[in-house]
Amino acid sequence: MSHYYTFTADDAVAFARQFGGLADPSGLVAAREVGDGNLNLVFKIFDESGVSRLVVKQALPYVRCVGESWPLTLDRARLEAQTLIEHHRHSPAHTVKIRHFEPALAAMVMDDLSDHRIWRGELIAGRHYPRAAAQLGRYLADALFHTSDFFLHPHEKKRQVAAFTNPEMCEITEDLFFTDPYQEQERNSYPPQLEADAAALRDDLPLHQAVAGLKHRFLSGAEALLHGDIHSGSIFVAEGSLKAIDAEFGYYGPVGFDIGTAIGNLLLNYCGAPGQLGLREAAAAREQRLVDIQTLWHTFQTQFLSLAHEKTRDAALAVPGYAALFLASVWRDAVGFCGTELIRRSVGLSHVADIDTIADEEMRHACLRHAIALGRALVVLAPRIDSVEALIARVRQYG
Amino acid sequence: MSHYYTFTADDAVAFARQFGGLADPSGLVAAREVGDGNLNLVFKIFDESGVSRLVVKQALPYVRCVGESWPLTLDRARLEAQTLIEHHRHSPAHTVKIRHFEPALAAMVMDDLSDHRIWRGELIAGRHYPRAAAQLGRYLADALFHTSDFFLHPHEKKRQVAAFTNPEMCEITEDLFFTDPYQEQERNSYPPQLEADAAALRDDLPLHQAVAGLKHRFLSGAEALLHGDIHSGSIFVAEGSLKAIDAEFGYYGPVGFDIGTAIGNLLLNYCGAPGQLGLREAAAAREQRLVDIQTLWHTFQTQFLSLAHEKTRDAALAVPGYAALFLASVWRDAVGFCGTELIRRSVGLSHVADIDTIADEEMRHACLRHAIALGRALVVLAPRIDSVEALIARVRQYG
Repeated sequence: MSHYYTFTADDAVAFARQFGGLADPSGLVAAREVGDGNLNLVFKIFDESGVSRLVVKQALPYVRCVGESWPLTLDRARLEAQTLIEHHRHSPAHTVKIRHFEPALAAMVMDDLSDHRIWRGELIAGRHYPRAAAQLGRYLADALFHTSDFFLHPHEKKRQVAAFTNPEMCEITEDLFFTDPYQEQERNSYPPQLEADAAALRDDLPLHQAVAGLKHRFLSGAEALLHGDIHSGSIFVAEGSLKAIDAEFGYYGPVGFDIGTAIGNLLLNYCGAPGQLGLREAAAAREQRLVDIQTLWHTFQTQFLSLAHEKTRDAALAVPGYAALFLASVWRDAVGFCGTELIRRSVGLSHVADIDTIADEEMRHACLRHAIALGRALVVLAPRIDSVEALIARVRQYG
Repeated sequence: MSHYYTFTADDAVAFARQFGGLADPSGLVAAREVGDGNLNLVFKIFDESGVSRLVVKQALPYVRCVGESWPLTLDRARLEAQTLIEHHRHSPAHTVKIRHFEPALAAMVMDDLSDHRIWRGELIAGRHYPRAAAQLGRYLADALFHTSDFFLHPHEKKRQVAAFTNPEMCEITEDLFFTDPYQEQERNSYPPQLEADAAALRDDLPLHQAVAGLKHRFLSGAEALLHGDIHSGSIFVAEGSLKAIDAEFGYYGPVGFDIGTAIGNLLLNYCGAPGQLGLREAAAAREQRLVDIQTLWHTFQTQFLSLAHEKTRDAALAVPGYAALFLASVWRDAVGFCGTELIRRSVGLSHVADIDTIADEEMRHACLRHAIALGRALVVLAPRIDSVEALIARVRQYG
């Protein structure tokens, strides 16, 4: 990484001109850093009319919010770019297009999505995108099927598993999802009023045993090339359009992890809705989230089964009925992973705006408690929640 | 591999002198090729007294039995040597010691085991080694625990998964275990009298679905560094001693595969015993095999749980009770994999001497049918065979 330097706005413009693949690169004249994360620089690149034409993203060698004290591999930029390129091959409509990646600079230039908005913000504001849930299900089916053992030759699959080995980013998930929330850990973050709820999580053997099984699946279940962080904050939406971004957690893992993370963030929105919207709007938003979850899963399932029927290359996995059996195990995994997402976003390091931006403190705490209780139930009961309808029934049961 | 050449006996002696680590290397004077496989040269290296002191093994770049027509990667020698070296670190008593490995020559020098015999031959002859089953269980627990997520740091585990990627040898297993026996395939091999039995295997949807699940586990379940081929023909025994050899199929896979292969070969001996021994001896051998299987599993389980209790490094997997839950899933996998071993050794390319050397044709066919029927039952019923005692009850039920 000896050639690495941190981009200025001018560097970002030069990079976009050189690698953006535009017919009129000299028309690119300005850049503005718009990153709200703390791991990367993100520049919008504008033309003379002030129209944003491309995005340049560069990984920083440390976590920005804590200065240079927490170094983080620049190789995550390669993993992000390669994951998005691979997913784009299989789901071009729903994956941001990476136009170029430069390893030495840990930088990539990609399509501008200024006409899109981050889904999480839209969900919080109660703005509904009627096609988003189905598009997300379609994205996950297309990306995950085509990188699974159903479709890839075993040699190619093994090559890819090795190429997408992502130890540092996976370690973040391993710790933040599956370990920290269940023990005393200074990285954990929750209001003191929730101490009893957090303490109960630390003293819950059936919960810990189920979480151990999920962590073990995360560590050892190399089923498909996951996005690895597919929450509503890494999804752009517009009228009739959905695009996945931010795949630096990409690796070969259990299919249920991506499904569970996606559903978990819809449920976090469900939990937060009463604190974000008026009474009637919140009730409507909640019903819509449950419909979204049902649509997401049914679309994923239908598309995965359809691909399995048409395109499975492995003679043994192609047997009638096997893909459906596999999806039943994916579903059980997904319910468990979904539960861990609710818990880690409530008491762990990283929270979600759906709940954290609720102004009323008591309401915010009530929403956090709701997410914790629901998350705990989903993790422990996952083996008995055998359909999306059963999941929705459980969600209603927990308020 | 530009420096590769096939060893003569003299080359093998020179190699052993240079790399065998003996205090008196010049005392090594002769070599005899003793390989009975078709993939490798195996030389015993003798001193002046005619005592075998070391073994030199060299991988051939093709399968010997079919001339040079079936090329096979020389890299399998690296995988064999590294798997045995890794297993030896964790189970020195029960893994042959590799003294040196030379990548360019695909050759290794290892301890001589002339005072040992291949377990399969001893089992067939009805010679009992009272400690072998427990030692095999101990070997599997020590080797598999220490290469699993319970023990390895996630970074080290991922590095190892990549280093032990073994596409060519895994492909042989993927095809021969999980695909060929269930379809028309010219590599399959069985007497014409068994055509109806073989045809039934090709037309059995519940069997195919269960086999698909097992193949998918084999393809995607990176739980531990498996031996990958731990049948009674890759195990040396002597009075009070057991040593695993021949690990060229080593890779990170599901723990239940090694357990199931080991148990499967004891059951193949069980099936063949009536054709190899007198009535009373056969009955005694069969009872002993069932005791062996029970001993193998209970020793494996006890040792794995003990290691998990003492040495688990992952905070989440260390939770009380989780290792036992994991072993319950390993057991279910093992029963299924065991069933596939019985089937593929009866109708697939590669058979076992326990049955194939039975002189009486009708008896031989009856033993093959027994193995097929038992194998089919184990694969399909695995989710309901929840203990080694339940397995033994099923075995008795099938004669």
